[in-house]
Amino acid sequence: MIRTADQLHTFTAQLLQAAGADQRNAQRVAQALVGANLCGVDTHGVWHLPGYVQAIRAGELLPTAWPTILEEGPAYARVAGGWTFGHVGAEVAMELALDKAATSGIALVSLVQAHHIGRLGEYVELAASRNMVGLVWAGGFAEEQPVAMPYGGRRPVLHTNPLAMGFPAGAETPMVLDFATTALSGVKVVEARSQGKQLPPGCIADREGKPTTDPEEFFKGGGHLPFGGHKGYGLMLAAELLGRVFTGSDTFAERPHGGPIFGHTGTAMIAFRADLFQPLTEYASRTDELEQRVRAVPPALGFAEVLVPGDLEARTREVRQREGIPIPDDLWGRLSELASSLGVEVG
Amino acid sequence: MIRTADQLHTFTAQLLQAAGADQRNAQRVAQALVGANLCGVDTHGVWHLPGYVQAIRAGELLPTAWPTILEEGPAYARVAGGWTFGHVGAEVAMELALDKAATSGIALVSLVQAHHIGRLGEYVELAASRNMVGLVWAGGFAEEQPVAMPYGGRRPVLHTNPLAMGFPAGAETPMVLDFATTALSGVKVVEARSQGKQLPPGCIADREGKPTTDPEEFFKGGGHLPFGGHKGYGLMLAAELLGRVFTGSDTFAERPHGGPIFGHTGTAMIAFRADLFQPLTEYASRTDELEQRVRAVPPALGFAEVLVPGDLEARTREVRQREGIPIPDDLWGRLSELASSLGVEVG
Repeated sequence: MIRTADQLHTFTAQLLQAAGADQRNAQRVAQALVGANLCGVDTHGVWHLPGYVQAIRAGELLPTAWPTILEEGPAYARVAGGWTFGHVGAEVAMELALDKAATSGIALVSLVQAHHIGRLGEYVELAASRNMVGLVWAGGFAEEQPVAMPYGGRRPVLHTNPLAMGFPAGAETPMVLDFATTALSGVKVVEARSQGKQLPPGCIADREGKPTTDPEEFFKGGGHLPFGGHKGYGLMLAAELLGRVFTGSDTFAERPHGGPIFGHTGTAMIAFRADLFQPLTEYASRTDELEQRVRAVPPALGFAEVLVPGDLEARTREVRQREGIPIPDDLWGRLSELASSLGVEVG
Repeated sequence: MIRTADQLHTFTAQLLQAAGADQRNAQRVAQALVGANLCGVDTHGVWHLPGYVQAIRAGELLPTAWPTILEEGPAYARVAGGWTFGHVGAEVAMELALDKAATSGIALVSLVQAHHIGRLGEYVELAASRNMVGLVWAGGFAEEQPVAMPYGGRRPVLHTNPLAMGFPAGAETPMVLDFATTALSGVKVVEARSQGKQLPPGCIADREGKPTTDPEEFFKGGGHLPFGGHKGYGLMLAAELLGRVFTGSDTFAERPHGGPIFGHTGTAMIAFRADLFQPLTEYASRTDELEQRVRAVPPALGFAEVLVPGDLEARTREVRQREGIPIPDDLWGRLSELASSLGVEVG
């Protein structure tokens, strides 16, 4: 099944409105989900719709709420998402950080009381599009269902705690990092299990803390391992400290809002002007030069080329904007069924 | 050979003054080097003295210079290190960031024209000691002698580009991350070669970009690999973008200052108040709780315990403050010889 981005956006927005969202929120979430599908990050796209509708029905997600600013200074603010779709609060928070950074040079905005904020890369891409560097850390997912082991440990107490960094460029693609601090994202373990496949070595551990490639072990008391050993573990803890502890998100937990995963989460965002110390053109041309320098490196055995983080997403976006977004049949079936149950015509 | 921290500090400061440093700079560098030895990071300690003296003699390091502030706003500044010891400029830069963050909530200070700044962890520990979160990225080491391959590439174009993050705590040890974005530090490859040892798998590659454990391959056109695959590679590029490109350090290159490694380097530092969104006691007790939670995890097979980043350094510091700092005989021989050649009495 192929849908154009416009078709998928309209469908998503209609479905969300039928599920109780107001127009403004429905439009924003459709933008975020279809944007993730467009750049190939399908794990953060319309695949989530059934879960969001379920969260609305369970009172975990308030589909007509809107974020509020809890406190602010010239270079910082804390935003409460109001338990609406996390994509709404996270965009408001990053926009606020960008506005403040335009004046102060740098700003920090934190977000609490947010449901799933989706693809972190979207927010640092937004920063980059305004000629700002953007940094995002998210934590607090593990309060009820920890899934990630600390380095050297045998019991999950942490989570996939992601981080993202985005850098504007000139003629080249903005560099965008956006990754889980676990070796794998949660979806990949579920997929491998359902497809009867093994996982790459070093990504999950069994309940003894011993690395394994068998996804079944994950569900028998095992867990994710941090990427990159003790270094990735350190970054996982940093995302927990910045996302949950520093933002004070625990104080804003209000079950059932946020559900089992998002009830305690928080996000810290930093934005600063790329032209803080030199004209933007100079910053941009040096960034382009660095990107060109690494792409010019001949590939190692087993690789086709050297990429800059964000290249794959940019390429996929170009292709899917032209050729449409492929939706697996089983997912389209579930989405169509959901739409029908809500009285939305499936286009 | 065992020396107390005080003995080693006096020796180091005297040696540096004899080599041309003024008292203020000599004291600061002694503090930095002995501080690194105290916490067990011997690769960033007095081992560097012969190299610094050589750099002074070569006109790469100006031992009586002092940093200047090139530009500043309430929440940002750029500092020129004046090509003196990097430890001097980096401390001034972090102190400035902490002062500004105390008022603005968050601040960003960059440093250019600095020789080796030493252990990054020291600067984020300084931030943590003032109840600030500190972030540091350094780049620009590869302009003349690149040693690190990009992910999927077969030619070195980058470097060990380190990053550090420090978080104040309450009763617990502040969490301090401080690591190279290569899998290994440069010193470890040199050591393995001279001792005829193999390296752990996945840390370096030969000139075809194929991972190898043979340190000889590193010196035959091979290079470091990023830690943690494409994620660590992304962080290596981020440190290059923040440390060199964003700070504009290339513009300040003035050979022979900085020598082949430090001539183009720059450092970006961000500091923000840990109590920006809640009373410090609340932030601190939640941080303590997180540290306790991970330390309470039973160890995996092959591990003795679960640690928080910074624990090992804190423990070593305690031991070495009590029992003194062990200096390998060959190193002590070289240092004694250097001291004698400078007319410094070896205590």
